[in-house]
Amino acid sequence: MLSPLQKARLEYTPKMPKILQNVAAICFQEGQRVCASELFPKLSSSRVLTASTDSPPPAQPLRVGVVLSGGQAPGGHNVICGMYDALHALNPHSRLFGFIGGPGGILKDKVVELTEEHLASFRNQGGFDLIGSGRTKIETQEQFQKSLETVERLNLDGLVIVGGDDSNTNACFLAEYFLQHNSKTCVIGVPKTIDADLQNEFVELSFGFDTACRVYSEFIGNIARDAISAKKYYFFIKLMGRSTSHIALECALATHPNLTLIGEEIQAKGQSLADVVRDISDLIAARAEEGKDYGVILVPEGIIEFVGDVKILISELNALLASTSKHGAAMEPMSPPDKVRYVIPHLGDHARGTFEMLPHIIQEQLLCDRDPHGNVQMSKIESERLLMELCRQELAERKLRGEYKGRYAAVPIFSGYEGRSSLPSVFDADYCYCLGRLAACLVAHKKTGYMTSISNLAKPASEWSVCATPLHMMIHFEERDGQQKAVIRKAPCDLGGKPFEYFAAERDGWRVEDCYCQPGPIQFFGPTEIADSRPISLKLRGEK
Amino acid sequence: MLSPLQKARLEYTPKMPKILQNVAAICFQEGQRVCASELFPKLSSSRVLTASTDSPPPAQPLRVGVVLSGGQAPGGHNVICGMYDALHALNPHSRLFGFIGGPGGILKDKVVELTEEHLASFRNQGGFDLIGSGRTKIETQEQFQKSLETVERLNLDGLVIVGGDDSNTNACFLAEYFLQHNSKTCVIGVPKTIDADLQNEFVELSFGFDTACRVYSEFIGNIARDAISAKKYYFFIKLMGRSTSHIALECALATHPNLTLIGEEIQAKGQSLADVVRDISDLIAARAEEGKDYGVILVPEGIIEFVGDVKILISELNALLASTSKHGAAMEPMSPPDKVRYVIPHLGDHARGTFEMLPHIIQEQLLCDRDPHGNVQMSKIESERLLMELCRQELAERKLRGEYKGRYAAVPIFSGYEGRSSLPSVFDADYCYCLGRLAACLVAHKKTGYMTSISNLAKPASEWSVCATPLHMMIHFEERDGQQKAVIRKAPCDLGGKPFEYFAAERDGWRVEDCYCQPGPIQFFGPTEIADSRPISLKLRGEK
Repeated sequence: MLSPLQKARLEYTPKMPKILQNVAAICFQEGQRVCASELFPKLSSSRVLTASTDSPPPAQPLRVGVVLSGGQAPGGHNVICGMYDALHALNPHSRLFGFIGGPGGILKDKVVELTEEHLASFRNQGGFDLIGSGRTKIETQEQFQKSLETVERLNLDGLVIVGGDDSNTNACFLAEYFLQHNSKTCVIGVPKTIDADLQNEFVELSFGFDTACRVYSEFIGNIARDAISAKKYYFFIKLMGRSTSHIALECALATHPNLTLIGEEIQAKGQSLADVVRDISDLIAARAEEGKDYGVILVPEGIIEFVGDVKILISELNALLASTSKHGAAMEPMSPPDKVRYVIPHLGDHARGTFEMLPHIIQEQLLCDRDPHGNVQMSKIESERLLMELCRQELAERKLRGEYKGRYAAVPIFSGYEGRSSLPSVFDADYCYCLGRLAACLVAHKKTGYMTSISNLAKPASEWSVCATPLHMMIHFEERDGQQKAVIRKAPCDLGGKPFEYFAAERDGWRVEDCYCQPGPIQFFGPTEIADSRPISLKLRGEK
Repeated sequence: MLSPLQKARLEYTPKMPKILQNVAAICFQEGQRVCASELFPKLSSSRVLTASTDSPPPAQPLRVGVVLSGGQAPGGHNVICGMYDALHALNPHSRLFGFIGGPGGILKDKVVELTEEHLASFRNQGGFDLIGSGRTKIETQEQFQKSLETVERLNLDGLVIVGGDDSNTNACFLAEYFLQHNSKTCVIGVPKTIDADLQNEFVELSFGFDTACRVYSEFIGNIARDAISAKKYYFFIKLMGRSTSHIALECALATHPNLTLIGEEIQAKGQSLADVVRDISDLIAARAEEGKDYGVILVPEGIIEFVGDVKILISELNALLASTSKHGAAMEPMSPPDKVRYVIPHLGDHARGTFEMLPHIIQEQLLCDRDPHGNVQMSKIESERLLMELCRQELAERKLRGEYKGRYAAVPIFSGYEGRSSLPSVFDADYCYCLGRLAACLVAHKKTGYMTSISNLAKPASEWSVCATPLHMMIHFEERDGQQKAVIRKAPCDLGGKPFEYFAAERDGWRVEDCYCQPGPIQFFGPTEIADSRPISLKLRGEK
């Protein structure tokens, strides 16, 4: 059942730059820059494309497939709607196919033809439920072969892969594979991820980040207002972002919490877990001096994995626990407390100190709750609860030493899933619709191995630049699991970039003074600066 | 710092019925009904008042105090703004005083004069931070005496208490006390609580419920959309509502989750903890039959306390653990696991069965983590995590018996604090502003011991009815902590009422079919039915 707001959003027509309005007249200019790569013999001569206007001959009907890959991001449905509308504007006999349940749908040939009727209730809506998504990766030769069989059977002119860094890496290899096997199917990538870590000189921003951050910022702003009203609690708010802290940074810029942990900064400073706990406790003690026993602290979910000594501990634990090791075998039948007792003397000094800092229950969890490869699952540790608890210990010790006089009551909160499938903001609705239209045009022009790149996004939609970048230009070698792998880089928060610089300059003023800002819920109507706003970090990056 | 939306909301002028527009012309008609009470000799002859229009002589300047009591509810600042504007419309020399930090501010005579300058950045804003709130109760003779001294010192014509059932009970006794001591200070109550349990024949709805439920419903709708997109998780969403389940019911009506626990129903059916776990597991198993290993389950935070056998367990544990008992003394020095072992054989059969169902960690928590009176703290148990874990055990057993074939992955979520201090919805902004204006008018007319009662709320503001009800008419005797006490009743969800009836008729259709509705974020602009909506349960109650 659709809510009144959902119905109103169905009626919305996304805004777009002029060039995407008449897709029949679009053409692409090749840029100068070449970036040859031995990995991609077929693709390597492709150049950056810029859309311009021409009057090409009427297009043939096209057959295009689309797949949503990985975690949900608001706007995914609009990518599909944009593709559909552009394909039909190009030729009313074009057909669009959706692969069901993510890339696995390509391998299993699970597909549905998408018609106007299917799309009617998904325009400008959240979620990925029209065709679902999945985390299967298409990266082996066998999977490439399967994919080829599927696109051949469907006689596809194009396959559009909506995904993050890994999915687009795979899209690039798949495009090369298709070319090498003389397939006509073009492969186009669309940059999706709320984490904003698919970002580089060609990709200004992945879609979904704006909406997700605005949902989280609504939440954080409300919590901060509650904190300053009740004056009772420290809220440790965990945010999404396992590998990077873009979300936490954007939310901090929008809401001005008292402290925000940025994983990249902790890593750059080489901070230990004790350092992080000391920093938070210093904040709490400084506020207590002013009579303030409340506050808001933002914690990216992956924060623990940026902490140097925790990384050492994890690698020692993994070695000790390996079922092939004598220790692993010895511990196998033990009870959790016995495992803890057994493991401690076998850790190095440094790792032992870190392990002994952890609450008992976390120690046991680390030793017992392992992944299918036998590795400890740091990601299962609820970082906001861990930090909250460690601060409790630290503050209790400071109290004994007379260094802290406050009353510490903390509440752990996780703001995550509710941002991934929200109704897309006006910006994400517009942006995604344009990405979809552009993807369709690239297929129509038989471009393959490209990512849709729309830039100048801080400006109104009418001023956006419409380009496409060869995927292989983003690929470089990187160590993953001890091996060199050709991948699109996951962009960390740039500690030298404008958004972080601005944050670093302002944050001291937010520590003890309460400068909370309450952005409120996403608006779809009303003044442009409210309804059609942009991420603060995007605007800052654009400033010269 | 104010966000653009906050700034836009500052400009908003609340809507009101005509009669509240010209407060100088308002007068009050006494109704027929009398409801004498020996508890309130002075107040007992007061009658229900209905506002009408007259041309009374120009009002003298008034001096009025206001206090916010208990948990935050969106709209509190607008009550104060409504009071201020009405007082100044009545006479520009009137003065408004805010007591700092809740009723404790009256006792400690902590007060600030509120001026236009103070209010300028709080109009239509969330939170209670203008003057803060607190949970101190004014209920002893000594506290009444202190309060009298404060209002006399300030020479107040009126004291407006914005609070829930308990605060308004206390307001009634305070009004009687002031009358008995010949104080001129009128006491007026304003119905506040997001829980909506301050509700009766005179009070259609407390303020804050609409906004809070819309914030929670945005959250739940987003989570449901995520659930149906990823198809991986059961979300156990805990909602506020310790004593009643109005919030869960309203959110269920707005979002159509697969299962919603209603405390009052569990109590009426006399369900045990095992029954509740069985019901949830039945849902999960039925959905697994359809290939659906995901879903959304709403859990009011106080749910465990509605479960019959848990109540028995708690009372037995409290008796055993009392420090005055020999068992209490014996257990004092024991380690948590030893306490658990000690306590089990001393429980009755029924309570033992319930205790043994609980995960080990919860058993220890119950025995170790007690309140200042030595009672077990059921409220510290995270009910959503407990139920999630008990369902895991139950489903594992069903799997062994071949009765369940699904894959169970559950995520606990708490949606609570972010709803209490949100920007008030248009409805709550309007309603609260009107409540404040009405409170000021009642003081101007020297009415005391009244609650502001605005009704016909499902209709546009222009059609609202403006009345005032003697607080003592709502007071009855009720057993609390084993004693008869005169209180305003906390209204439970009425299982015979229209909202629950509607829910009960619809919910089976939401179990296995996914009928999730995504209300989206609160809108302040746009179509009336979206921006100026009403709670569904309020609309249903109004239907004949």
